[in-house]
Amino acid sequence: MASNSFGKIFRWTTFGESHGKAIGVVIDGCPAGLEISDELINEALKLRAPGQSPLTSPRKEKDAAEIVSGIFEGKTTGAPIAILIWNKDADSSKYEPIKGLLRPGHANFTYLEKYGIFDYRGGGRSSARETAARVAAGAVAKQLLSHFGIKVRSFLKQVGPVKDLNDENLKAVIEAAKEEGDSLGGIVEFEATGLPVGLGDPVYEKLEANLAKAMMSLPATKGFEIGEGFHAAEMKGSEHNDAFESEGEKIKTSSSHAGGTLGGISNGMPLVGRVAFKPTSSIKKAQETTTIEGEKAEFKLPEGSRHDPCVAIRAVPIVEAMVYLVLADAILLNRSAKL
Amino acid sequence: MASNSFGKIFRWTTFGESHGKAIGVVIDGCPAGLEISDELINEALKLRAPGQSPLTSPRKEKDAAEIVSGIFEGKTTGAPIAILIWNKDADSSKYEPIKGLLRPGHANFTYLEKYGIFDYRGGGRSSARETAARVAAGAVAKQLLSHFGIKVRSFLKQVGPVKDLNDENLKAVIEAAKEEGDSLGGIVEFEATGLPVGLGDPVYEKLEANLAKAMMSLPATKGFEIGEGFHAAEMKGSEHNDAFESEGEKIKTSSSHAGGTLGGISNGMPLVGRVAFKPTSSIKKAQETTTIEGEKAEFKLPEGSRHDPCVAIRAVPIVEAMVYLVLADAILLNRSAKL
Amino acid sequence: MASNSFGKIFRWTTFGESHGKAIGVVIDGCPAGLEISDELINEALKLRAPGQSPLTSPRKEKDAAEIVSGIFEGKTTGAPIAILIWNKDADSSKYEPIKGLLRPGHANFTYLEKYGIFDYRGGGRSSARETAARVAAGAVAKQLLSHFGIKVRSFLKQVGPVKDLNDENLKAVIEAAKEEGDSLGGIVEFEATGLPVGLGDPVYEKLEANLAKAMMSLPATKGFEIGEGFHAAEMKGSEHNDAFESEGEKIKTSSSHAGGTLGGISNGMPLVGRVAFKPTSSIKKAQETTTIEGEKAEFKLPEGSRHDPCVAIRAVPIVEAMVYLVLADAILLNRSAKL
Amino acid sequence: MASNSFGKIFRWTTFGESHGKAIGVVIDGCPAGLEISDELINEALKLRAPGQSPLTSPRKEKDAAEIVSGIFEGKTTGAPIAILIWNKDADSSKYEPIKGLLRPGHANFTYLEKYGIFDYRGGGRSSARETAARVAAGAVAKQLLSHFGIKVRSFLKQVGPVKDLNDENLKAVIEAAKEEGDSLGGIVEFEATGLPVGLGDPVYEKLEANLAKAMMSLPATKGFEIGEGFHAAEMKGSEHNDAFESEGEKIKTSSSHAGGTLGGISNGMPLVGRVAFKPTSSIKKAQETTTIEGEKAEFKLPEGSRHDPCVAIRAVPIVEAMVYLVLADAILLNRSAKL
Repeated sequence: MASNSFGKIFRWTTFGESHGKAIGVVIDGCPAGLEISDELINEALKLRAPGQSPLTSPRKEKDAAEIVSGIFEGKTTGAPIAILIWNKDADSSKYEPIKGLLRPGHANFTYLEKYGIFDYRGGGRSSARETAARVAAGAVAKQLLSHFGIKVRSFLKQVGPVKDLNDENLKAVIEAAKEEGDSLGGIVEFEATGLPVGLGDPVYEKLEANLAKAMMSLPATKGFEIGEGFHAAEMKGSEHNDAFESEGEKIKTSSSHAGGTLGGISNGMPLVGRVAFKPTSSIKKAQETTTIEGEKAEFKLPEGSRHDPCVAIRAVPIVEAMVYLVLADAILLNRSAKL
Repeated sequence: MASNSFGKIFRWTTFGESHGKAIGVVIDGCPAGLEISDELINEALKLRAPGQSPLTSPRKEKDAAEIVSGIFEGKTTGAPIAILIWNKDADSSKYEPIKGLLRPGHANFTYLEKYGIFDYRGGGRSSARETAARVAAGAVAKQLLSHFGIKVRSFLKQVGPVKDLNDENLKAVIEAAKEEGDSLGGIVEFEATGLPVGLGDPVYEKLEANLAKAMMSLPATKGFEIGEGFHAAEMKGSEHNDAFESEGEKIKTSSSHAGGTLGGISNGMPLVGRVAFKPTSSIKKAQETTTIEGEKAEFKLPEGSRHDPCVAIRAVPIVEAMVYLVLADAILLNRSAKL
Repeated sequence: MASNSFGKIFRWTTFGESHGKAIGVVIDGCPAGLEISDELINEALKLRAPGQSPLTSPRKEKDAAEIVSGIFEGKTTGAPIAILIWNKDADSSKYEPIKGLLRPGHANFTYLEKYGIFDYRGGGRSSARETAARVAAGAVAKQLLSHFGIKVRSFLKQVGPVKDLNDENLKAVIEAAKEEGDSLGGIVEFEATGLPVGLGDPVYEKLEANLAKAMMSLPATKGFEIGEGFHAAEMKGSEHNDAFESEGEKIKTSSSHAGGTLGGISNGMPLVGRVAFKPTSSIKKAQETTTIEGEKAEFKLPEGSRHDPCVAIRAVPIVEAMVYLVLADAILLNRSAKL
Repeated sequence: MASNSFGKIFRWTTFGESHGKAIGVVIDGCPAGLEISDELINEALKLRAPGQSPLTSPRKEKDAAEIVSGIFEGKTTGAPIAILIWNKDADSSKYEPIKGLLRPGHANFTYLEKYGIFDYRGGGRSSARETAARVAAGAVAKQLLSHFGIKVRSFLKQVGPVKDLNDENLKAVIEAAKEEGDSLGGIVEFEATGLPVGLGDPVYEKLEANLAKAMMSLPATKGFEIGEGFHAAEMKGSEHNDAFESEGEKIKTSSSHAGGTLGGISNGMPLVGRVAFKPTSSIKKAQETTTIEGEKAEFKLPEGSRHDPCVAIRAVPIVEAMVYLVLADAILLNRSAKL
């Protein structure tokens, strides 16, 4: 089933496997007249690139975007924007020893059952590498939203048990996990500002519903919340409700427990939410498993394999990209609310 | 923007306002040959109906479904199934005094800004009454899934601060809230069993992504999680990963932290997740607000208005319905995975 | 498969069988602020109603629309507009004698094979009665387009072999067909005026592509053409190309062989096309067929059955409705072409 | 608006401009396990390639497909299949002299008005070059359908006024048009055999409705018909209806005026239809036009430009590809008709 696209009017489709020739994205429905360049995309990719810090996977590949279509004289034309990111540093031979094993916490079991075939090299289509294509698309969405004064930022909120993060305790906890050959979960928070009132649509296309789908479509995500999120369950209505007040011509709320939407539609306050990431499933520690045929076996990442001790860290710019992408579609869809 | 439909192959569309003539749903894409009757729908509606217990809204209306199309000699024909639920007990006059006020925590502000018009009677389209139509559709989905041995159940996991719920402390906490004219949030958990391996699709149509969208499209939801959810952020990979093991011909996992999916595709284990509900926004306690024009004002639910002290309680069968609906689409979509 | 909806932003879904309780439509995505009433819908339905003239089916039923949702104080609110048309004059007993027969030119064979079940009463879902719901939706689309100065008209272009139609030869040819218990095909032409330049989208969403789909989704249609249509095949480029010229500030073409689009996008000239209808398949003349089980049999419409000697005649307002509906979606989609 | 995709389950998206870096297609939803190779795609592209015969455009570019994703060990995996076709022979300088002119019969006027920007080089996105990407996708669809015994062929039915085509009179009429610097329209017929009963869906997703949309989305198409098409308008019901008869276990019709569908669903007979193409709009003969600013001007294709005297000729394999693509989606969608 076609499942590699997202968005209604501003719609993007990603393709490509971790160790295939290239990954890429086609962005369809971007309005004409927007300035886009290879550099703009590459800037965004740099922030996501692996091998940037000792905290993340040492894959050295420097991703370089190649815009293949949709731009004329530096601007979008309304035609689909295809962007390619070639794979260069992919050494598939390391995956040979584990190709017959089910990987705990990994998609190879379900892909094999569903499709009867699995491109096991680097995780194939299920690899987090696909998110580079999302980041490329996000850079286009960001450019679009900058015309409307909308800005998104995201940051690490929690890593493993550490909630009060600073550079030092982050480094410590990550290095401890690396030493054990283990991994850590984490939480990423996002905040979008500058939204007008009106983004999102009633019932099934609520802004937070599409954000939730976008985030839960990311690899390794286990939870999504907006505003007070799960904490709202412990609150009373009189605490959670945000009082309305006037500020000159504008009506706003004095607090923002809701997180920026009411009835699924942006209320003009900052849009705030969080995404929970599980610990990286591919670890160096030995784990019980079976072969594809069901024989008892042991799994550990082969020596020399890349290993991200905490996917949440690298997810920060990806979460940001997803917010931009969802908002790009929402801002265009909102143009047809009134006569 | 058309936003009242959900699903790709098994697709439903709801319509209707709280105090309009009727609410309803059109289910399009249900396979032919399924036994469906008014009774089947009414059974499901009964579980959701207001006025059932002192813990929920006293609206007395007994919802009765009327199937208008799509059934012939007791069976689905492949044609769209339209179901109507007529509104009977709607007294709109109570809403007159508050029609010029912004309601804290409520959609009337955003609807007014987005559309320039708002059917304020009982919340109009933004009312939780819309969920009765979802429950009706869910009954059809449940019937479809029973053919594949799939069963969903859901239950209250938390109400306000109370996590270890029993009839007595639930009653106590709800009555206390009612007395204060206040409301409580809560968490609903769902569990689906009998799923084959293979439901859900890679990348943007992951099973949990569609579940998240479905749940976050419900009124008053603030969070969604699957498996360990937000708790996964605090775990290590070696703890969170579920080891594979053989059980006869079948491969399963010995634990189920993942909550039933790997890479967005069902892995044959029970599908488990949770949904966080904020406290009901409409309360009897006075709250600061403004008029639509921005003048300072006070808002409280008019005397005699219906008032649900905790929407999470009535959400239990609705969450169940949403799981059935998402799975109905997923099981049909999975038919085209292989040649 | 969900197949009863059309449109992307302005999206309608029809339901109901010829001899079921009701037929209806849900229009989702209509902008807020549009004046709509039962009367407006009923006016449109009257033009389509059977039993109006001796030339069409004598079914006496006066269709009366009941708007069930989406209108508040006489105006659209952005919520889905559900419209019901109750079936009253449906006498299903006449269909008993033919329920075991395959009907030449009719959908009962393919529905039975596809679904294993068929609501044979009056043709069930495959009946032309479904088009009343399209006409109801078309009345809403017409109202929307009137705000933009767009107007559609349609008319009979050909009936059977008669191309130079007037009241008298039309009556003569129809009565001759009736007398023989036979039926006639026909061609309906449409013309839309007032379109801005820019409606329709490149490649797969060309304006004529969506018009073609809309028309070929009508029962009994066998062909669609725009502008010169099939005749264009016999023309030379120098004849067919429309020269551009200035008229004040405006650029237009001096001829209009193209029929109102260039590259799938409206060019500001009238949109002109034609739809071919086959002769009504249900006739009184005896025809060879088989039973559902494959036994040789004879089919003719039972005595007393309704019988439309030429569906093209009643299709005139339906074609008009379809043009309005396609344009309603196109005009909203065009709002996101530019920044 | 996202408008470069087609299909629901088997969905393809094309991108690229005539004189950009590359054109391409992403095919999403192809079932796993299908054998696909660069050679398979290239075979299909060869049949469409320009410069093959003196009757078509002399563009020499040999299109070579590069499959970038979705294939593992020679087979589809369920992941999106991205195919690139690099542009090599594109000399854009020839288009400089005409970039300020409106081209009669061409999309540059409507694109400019809609988007405010136009990639005029070789027609940019509006170029027929986009159809190479359709042919590449069609090769995948053809491979899928070969597993079900479905085969499509297409051929020239008419060129200009010549309906009884043979090599000699085709060559004569084309050369006459070339000499005059003019162009000719034409009609292409297609026939698909081996279809089961049941493809296509009621109401808005009728098989012929999707075929019509597919064909009318091709550049230069002005009409579509199925079976008797426009000729059906002149027939009587007793002539047009195809009688059912038994052939062993199978029920078929003794004639096939319907063209292979009843009620929008394939009836097991060959699927037959026709597509009308206008004469190529870009001709060497001088034509009246205006500049983009509205000044009177003259347009003719610059010396040395490529010039296809009859697009219908090159459209033959493209029409075939479109039929394969529509059927690929239909055959997968049909898997969810029954329980």
